[in-house]
Amino acid sequence: MCRWLAYSGSPILLDTLLYKPAHSLIDQSLHSKLGVETTNGDGFGVGWYTEGNDNPALFKDIGPAWNNRNLRELADHVHSPLFFAHIRASTGTAVQQTNCHPFRHGRWMFMHNGAIAGFHLMRRELMLLVDPELYADIGGSTDSEVMFYLALTYGLDEDPPAAVARMAEVVERTGHEHGVEFPLQMTLAITDGVRLWAFRYSSGRTSRSLFYSSKVEALRRLHPDVRFLRDISDETRLIVSEPLGDLPGAWHEVPESSYGVIQPGGDEMYSFIPSAA
Amino acid sequence: MCRWLAYSGSPILLDTLLYKPAHSLIDQSLHSKLGVETTNGDGFGVGWYTEGNDNPALFKDIGPAWNNRNLRELADHVHSPLFFAHIRASTGTAVQQTNCHPFRHGRWMFMHNGAIAGFHLMRRELMLLVDPELYADIGGSTDSEVMFYLALTYGLDEDPPAAVARMAEVVERTGHEHGVEFPLQMTLAITDGVRLWAFRYSSGRTSRSLFYSSKVEALRRLHPDVRFLRDISDETRLIVSEPLGDLPGAWHEVPESSYGVIQPGGDEMYSFIPSAA
Amino acid sequence: MCRWLAYSGSPILLDTLLYKPAHSLIDQSLHSKLGVETTNGDGFGVGWYTEGNDNPALFKDIGPAWNNRNLRELADHVHSPLFFAHIRASTGTAVQQTNCHPFRHGRWMFMHNGAIAGFHLMRRELMLLVDPELYADIGGSTDSEVMFYLALTYGLDEDPPAAVARMAEVVERTGHEHGVEFPLQMTLAITDGVRLWAFRYSSGRTSRSLFYSSKVEALRRLHPDVRFLRDISDETRLIVSEPLGDLPGAWHEVPESSYGVIQPGGDEMYSFIPSAA
Amino acid sequence: MCRWLAYSGSPILLDTLLYKPAHSLIDQSLHSKLGVETTNGDGFGVGWYTEGNDNPALFKDIGPAWNNRNLRELADHVHSPLFFAHIRASTGTAVQQTNCHPFRHGRWMFMHNGAIAGFHLMRRELMLLVDPELYADIGGSTDSEVMFYLALTYGLDEDPPAAVARMAEVVERTGHEHGVEFPLQMTLAITDGVRLWAFRYSSGRTSRSLFYSSKVEALRRLHPDVRFLRDISDETRLIVSEPLGDLPGAWHEVPESSYGVIQPGGDEMYSFIPSAA
Repeated sequence: MCRWLAYSGSPILLDTLLYKPAHSLIDQSLHSKLGVETTNGDGFGVGWYTEGNDNPALFKDIGPAWNNRNLRELADHVHSPLFFAHIRASTGTAVQQTNCHPFRHGRWMFMHNGAIAGFHLMRRELMLLVDPELYADIGGSTDSEVMFYLALTYGLDEDPPAAVARMAEVVERTGHEHGVEFPLQMTLAITDGVRLWAFRYSSGRTSRSLFYSSKVEALRRLHPDVRFLRDISDETRLIVSEPLGDLPGAWHEVPESSYGVIQPGGDEMYSFIPSAA
Repeated sequence: MCRWLAYSGSPILLDTLLYKPAHSLIDQSLHSKLGVETTNGDGFGVGWYTEGNDNPALFKDIGPAWNNRNLRELADHVHSPLFFAHIRASTGTAVQQTNCHPFRHGRWMFMHNGAIAGFHLMRRELMLLVDPELYADIGGSTDSEVMFYLALTYGLDEDPPAAVARMAEVVERTGHEHGVEFPLQMTLAITDGVRLWAFRYSSGRTSRSLFYSSKVEALRRLHPDVRFLRDISDETRLIVSEPLGDLPGAWHEVPESSYGVIQPGGDEMYSFIPSAA
Repeated sequence: MCRWLAYSGSPILLDTLLYKPAHSLIDQSLHSKLGVETTNGDGFGVGWYTEGNDNPALFKDIGPAWNNRNLRELADHVHSPLFFAHIRASTGTAVQQTNCHPFRHGRWMFMHNGAIAGFHLMRRELMLLVDPELYADIGGSTDSEVMFYLALTYGLDEDPPAAVARMAEVVERTGHEHGVEFPLQMTLAITDGVRLWAFRYSSGRTSRSLFYSSKVEALRRLHPDVRFLRDISDETRLIVSEPLGDLPGAWHEVPESSYGVIQPGGDEMYSFIPSAA
Repeated sequence: MCRWLAYSGSPILLDTLLYKPAHSLIDQSLHSKLGVETTNGDGFGVGWYTEGNDNPALFKDIGPAWNNRNLRELADHVHSPLFFAHIRASTGTAVQQTNCHPFRHGRWMFMHNGAIAGFHLMRRELMLLVDPELYADIGGSTDSEVMFYLALTYGLDEDPPAAVARMAEVVERTGHEHGVEFPLQMTLAITDGVRLWAFRYSSGRTSRSLFYSSKVEALRRLHPDVRFLRDISDETRLIVSEPLGDLPGAWHEVPESSYGVIQPGGDEMYSFIPSAA
């Protein structure tokens, strides 16, 4: 299992969220409180959008995030209005850059915490369902990347929630055919560089933790003294595997079996149900 | 493309062949003479058999062999009667341990120099031909590993030359269906820990270089002063991508479209033709 | 801080101690119970002696031990009668192979858990005390390696306990000159390939945990059903940062301010006091 | 030995110089034409200045530059008006991030191609000459980093050419005392984020290659069709170990024993002579 963070809002230095908070993602890499494992040291990745390039930049490494000097450097120099960060705790799959999140396809970015139970049994069948045009682009060996390519196959470009719902349905159906009772466990973040979708779902309704930050406006009223809140725009929003600190009123749990959209003009939350096309 | 070395004979220190010769594999990693690239610095691997374990040990790393301190250490301490060593020059595939040769399955070891032309186009089709029971064990993203798993699918355990011939036939047929004129380019080494097979073949009859060492007996007569030759058994044999030095009479080219078997009781050479089952 | 293990006795597979025990060193890399940090993921090292080479082999890597596939391979294939293993939790020094333990000089091996408090302040002074002939061999930037080279400077070759006592005295004196009240915190293992010394000491008499295994004879009587105990010689002995499991009667704490010698003919324990020459 | 590139001018994407040119630094990492070694695969580094931070960002890795995916990503997303890039061919020193150039101290950046002959003999003496306040900041084990810290010791902050001249004098004097005829071989780039100094010098007057680019104005007249030249400011300047391509009139050799300053208001070239304070 893993921990992740997705940010959308005023351009900020990565450091502000990766290192500065009391329970930052770096702290979570050593001392996760809500994860399956306390240590998330099997590689990490950061993906961010910059001006002048529709596709996000990726930086990944196979060592732990907490001692990575290059990540420390980038965090001090890279500003971005939309970025993902992910720390990995492998459940056995190889620790290599092609297995580190976020994954990218064109302007799309995808990251995942969770697992397909029994993936070893159904890897081949799921791979066969991937669009043959996309198949050869799969670079790693994780269940997460297959989930991403299934979502791409099922129309991520046109309708992300529908594509993810279909992917989830296919994974559950395939799992059930192999006698796996609860095949899917996922918290997902997906973005095209403009909008950001976050999903919380699991076949057994026991989904991993996921939180979103309160509206900045409300937080400013609650905490008029917190400088950071004055510097960011009203539309700034964070989605995280676990809260980055103890600021009262700052965090809300994403409800079980639901997803949210962070977008210009107003964020929204919906319920999520796997579904065939 | 890559360079490799396969050894079978009296147990020797890896150093004897990996570092000591004038044009050792380490030297070839920087200054290959007969390879497609002079530099082979995209990862490496060594596999060796030890007493008390039917399966070989593997050591792989993603940096160049020439500056790897762990390889230098192992070479000074590991003795083996049968080992493979491989240095990689990637043609674009990710540089990660799961893409480093040799590959292993149970007691089998496999390494390759060459490529499937147009692999990106036919990766999915070839993967589909792999025995579903074996599919999920594929850990990397190279054409070489798919070739290994196809050979396993086609009976490597029972009849290695027949399994390789069928794999080659399938790769060529699939390539031709995609309009690739010369789909296969390969020099292969395969072993089960007892016998060792080496293949040299390419669809266009322009195979990469491959050499085998002369009989030790003959070499001893030619070079009575070379101490190394006195220390090794009569059955010792080397197969290499390029000669390790200039000892006259030491090296013979493996003929185009042929394969050899190194085995207790007498080595043999045959012609090689891809063939359906 | 770090965790380590030193073994001397019947030749065994590294796996037997590195992976097999319930609270093996690999388990300690993720879930140390007695260490300063629960996670020890900033590189690791193994050093072992083999027949035909007076100098030990070293294998080191900068990632965590728990996900290292090469270590897993070596553990399944390397037998040794005397080996060290070390997992590192950096206190800020760079994570690089030259900072991984064990350190080696000729046939000597050295590993350490602890720290010199205020090392940054006195690094230069301590380096100046290293024998100029040895100075340029220092490859890393840790306090531990400087401690090793000071011990070599003060006669490790002739009288290890005296050399370590002098090193400790010099470190404490230098620390006190810089106003550091308790400069030294150390548990050390040192070997020349025949004898093995282990030290437990700290300036404030608050030394990190260190344990030695009971006599095999006694353990066999206590646990006649434990097969491992029947396979090893009477002289087999382990020194560890924390017990590898819960076998009653198996482990004894090394007393504060003392050191032990494991050697052919009978092990011994003495008190340890830093002392000038 | 190594290869490097220093850029000062209009903010450009790193890709423009690191990957795009026919004989880019990436091409030089595999096929250097003027270097001592054709392969420069023992680690690399990039350092760049960004708005809002006086200190440069560093990205370093220990593998070859040619297959590094993170470097490829950064090159596509990072713009900078002043950056250094360096590819390393180790002459034996450990391949680790702390030995990769550029080195940094506060806002200063430093990179080097060359060597101190006999460095092993005089490492200790040279280290002793480093300002004790700076000593503990030395993180690696190269001669280059010691040269940087000696220059810092001798007043780099106030007068860079004088500080480098004094460093060179000290290295030569120490070398001569050890019987080394030609102790110093160097091409150096140094910057404080505003001005950029480049030095070409060697004790035997056989300095490694170094080139600077022609004035942009002149190049535009010569090559009115080269689009890149229209996009950059008149003050743009490059210093490189070897030319990045064959554009006639583009490159001039830095004369033996000289240094240049690239600065707002007009670049200048002077002769360089090691000198005591």
